[in-house]
Amino acid sequence: MNKACHLAKPSRLFLNSVAIGLALIGLAACSSASSVSHHVKDQEQQQSKSLLSSQVATQSATQHDVKPTTIIMVIADGMGPAFTTAYRNYKDNPDTAVVELTALDKVLTGSARTYPAKQSGWVTDSAASATALSTGIKTYNGAIAVDINKQPLETVLHRAKKLGKKTGVAVTSQIVHATPASYIAHNESRRNYNQIADSFLDDRINNQLVADVMLGGGWEYFIRDDRNLVNEFKALGYQYADSYEALAGLEKGKPTLGLFANVGLPWALDDPNPKRLSVLTEQATKQLENPKGFFLLVEASQVDWAGHANDIAGAMAEMADLEHAIIYLQDYVETNPDTLVVLTADHSTGGLTIGAKGEYRWSPEFLTGISRSVQTIASQLMQQDDKVSFLEAQLGFVLEDQAKNDIAAIPLDAKPRTIEAAIKLIIDAKTNTGWTTSGHTGIDVEVYSFGTGADHFKGNMNNTDIADKIFRLLGQ
Amino acid sequence: MNKACHLAKPSRLFLNSVAIGLALIGLAACSSASSVSHHVKDQEQQQSKSLLSSQVATQSATQHDVKPTTIIMVIADGMGPAFTTAYRNYKDNPDTAVVELTALDKVLTGSARTYPAKQSGWVTDSAASATALSTGIKTYNGAIAVDINKQPLETVLHRAKKLGKKTGVAVTSQIVHATPASYIAHNESRRNYNQIADSFLDDRINNQLVADVMLGGGWEYFIRDDRNLVNEFKALGYQYADSYEALAGLEKGKPTLGLFANVGLPWALDDPNPKRLSVLTEQATKQLENPKGFFLLVEASQVDWAGHANDIAGAMAEMADLEHAIIYLQDYVETNPDTLVVLTADHSTGGLTIGAKGEYRWSPEFLTGISRSVQTIASQLMQQDDKVSFLEAQLGFVLEDQAKNDIAAIPLDAKPRTIEAAIKLIIDAKTNTGWTTSGHTGIDVEVYSFGTGADHFKGNMNNTDIADKIFRLLGQ
Repeated sequence: MNKACHLAKPSRLFLNSVAIGLALIGLAACSSASSVSHHVKDQEQQQSKSLLSSQVATQSATQHDVKPTTIIMVIADGMGPAFTTAYRNYKDNPDTAVVELTALDKVLTGSARTYPAKQSGWVTDSAASATALSTGIKTYNGAIAVDINKQPLETVLHRAKKLGKKTGVAVTSQIVHATPASYIAHNESRRNYNQIADSFLDDRINNQLVADVMLGGGWEYFIRDDRNLVNEFKALGYQYADSYEALAGLEKGKPTLGLFANVGLPWALDDPNPKRLSVLTEQATKQLENPKGFFLLVEASQVDWAGHANDIAGAMAEMADLEHAIIYLQDYVETNPDTLVVLTADHSTGGLTIGAKGEYRWSPEFLTGISRSVQTIASQLMQQDDKVSFLEAQLGFVLEDQAKNDIAAIPLDAKPRTIEAAIKLIIDAKTNTGWTTSGHTGIDVEVYSFGTGADHFKGNMNNTDIADKIFRLLGQ
Repeated sequence: MNKACHLAKPSRLFLNSVAIGLALIGLAACSSASSVSHHVKDQEQQQSKSLLSSQVATQSATQHDVKPTTIIMVIADGMGPAFTTAYRNYKDNPDTAVVELTALDKVLTGSARTYPAKQSGWVTDSAASATALSTGIKTYNGAIAVDINKQPLETVLHRAKKLGKKTGVAVTSQIVHATPASYIAHNESRRNYNQIADSFLDDRINNQLVADVMLGGGWEYFIRDDRNLVNEFKALGYQYADSYEALAGLEKGKPTLGLFANVGLPWALDDPNPKRLSVLTEQATKQLENPKGFFLLVEASQVDWAGHANDIAGAMAEMADLEHAIIYLQDYVETNPDTLVVLTADHSTGGLTIGAKGEYRWSPEFLTGISRSVQTIASQLMQQDDKVSFLEAQLGFVLEDQAKNDIAAIPLDAKPRTIEAAIKLIIDAKTNTGWTTSGHTGIDVEVYSFGTGADHFKGNMNNTDIADKIFRLLGQ
């Protein structure tokens, strides 16, 4: 694969020029696909310019001229708008008259359109959307920072590295999963995990590795029979940690690889430290801090996984993990005001709805007693002599007769998915939670921003606009 | 019912004072329930004050001091965020590379929390949410501008009338339906349609009727055996129209009652004029224009009804009707810049999702050939000799074998709902549309605003905040 493109400046120069409304035509672009994409965005920006004057007037030139030294992009994978409302309801303190706001509520500034390149229809996967967010280009589902012709694209993380900033990712999936991969590497398929891991070590920008800090899961892809990338990273001067405790004990301000699980981290509900994302985020910022600033991608990866699993209690725990990370970052921006934080989702997952089946009710109070993921509960259910008592203890509520019958009806040799499905039906009926899919949906997602430059992220925007705005804030 | 309260100023004065952050305590409030609500909002506003400085800094005192002469509130009943994204996809021109923006996309400024008073749980009905939007007070599901103790509350429409502005409603439901009723009348139950119609004529503010212009459906409630309210309105000097043509021909600037259907207007898909809401909106503004300005409530009532019916083609047609009205209002604000327009939904309906059943696909292209509502198609299907050909002609696409079998299996004596359900299953399978309920869901809804004062409606807010902001813009 030709990696030259993302090292050259013309293609991004062109994009930026379009973005600020100059009519530059015919500059060498990275590929013909990129040119098409530019054309698309140019038209959309023309449309946006017809905004009524009251909107335009609120953005003063002064505000737009201030650039952050450090940019932290947070992606909550799969967090459609039903998840953020559900989480507010879930964490509401019933002993107060008020419905408490979440840390997210206070910094909502807009929403984003998530559809991929036309050939992939209206519903994006995480690779295409992460590529849109990292490069500003719509691409096909499955693409890791490559365009529809499979040509590599420069990402905002690459740009930051080129400009002499430090770079990093802190995620709860494996660090080679679609979202972090789309910021660091290029690959025609998100499934090529080992190739992507190799890229993390083999790619260079200004003769340096692409990312200074990488925290998440992924031993399986880094410690392999054919190659031990952990040892190779160490040989290149990277610190390595394989536990949260070891990570916290590392010397600060140094290149760091932290892998804490074979693939993704445990579910927040199952992790001894359910605030794992804020731990990783804090440690990443401490390793990355330097006078020239840094670009950090933070991903709450498993909101999406809980959505795929239609596990509402799991989803709420992942949202809590995200909120802790956002609270840490809000404190961080207070003490480091030259920092911009942007939070969005790449898409929504599961078709979650707050209420279902004709009933005007959602009962999140029955979620707060659920102490482990459905996956974990299901893995132990069939070994229990008294399944109902076990399940009631795990879920924290008394089962209805129908639920008891459903549990009794599970065959002893049932597959894990069957057992999980039975448990989830009970939880969904108790809370009146709705789902329409085990996959993604196409709804717009929320955009949150705070810190220096946050005023750029107002209103409804394309997910590609988020990359374009970050490119402009980073500069050339 | 004691109507004195909404004529007195102290309760709103108190609210406004809280809203601008003054610590006034113990002023006589309209009821104890109102006091509780104030307390709730005070705490929430304290929370909001902890917004990071970057957000606060973007709202200059100058912008906030400019007040509009005219305020137009638009409620798209049931329009959760899936509807707005779906509509953008539905109306996309496949012959262009770009995905065209809707008129709504260009003016998105925030989102709103919709939950009702705690006793009604997390999922609101249209009465409680319209009351929140019209009065700034959370109440129980079913309440029409009364608080949880069934005491009447002043609405923003009442305030405008008190201040000498003209007032009106233009809706596609019957004009006594929950949303318009919650701006004009007070009633302990939305179901008391005749009482509400009586209120429209019998209530007085400053010795005048509450609303100068009322356009929508509702002959059934206004021309009754016990009372002919149309004649009574005429006797009080109101012009009356019972067709869009007659409405357009009326003298402008005069009190006007326009009723165009027995209950709600026909579905946009079935109406000879599918742009009926923009017709009503335009005629309302022409009747209401005067030097002191006006307050107008516009409601796209039947987005909700299509959501309840899980009729995706019907929902998209209602969205198109709404968009035409918004385009008219955007033009109106261009020529009448001292006007504020705020658009939001009261809640989402149907649990609509863009994609379903594990498939990463939504296919709105199959909706564009559907020329009538499912209700209308179903009412004619069983009389057809060749049901499949009839249905293919009505839907504009070829039926799959499974769909043909499903239609053949409908009993000849099937009830309308059974026939409708069969047709909707076919449409949902073809487009891969998801639904979870025939009722409402609790997701936050979008807020759009443009014109003078639009900068007040940014970020995530409570639906009650929208009323509070409008009260402040109207003044005392």
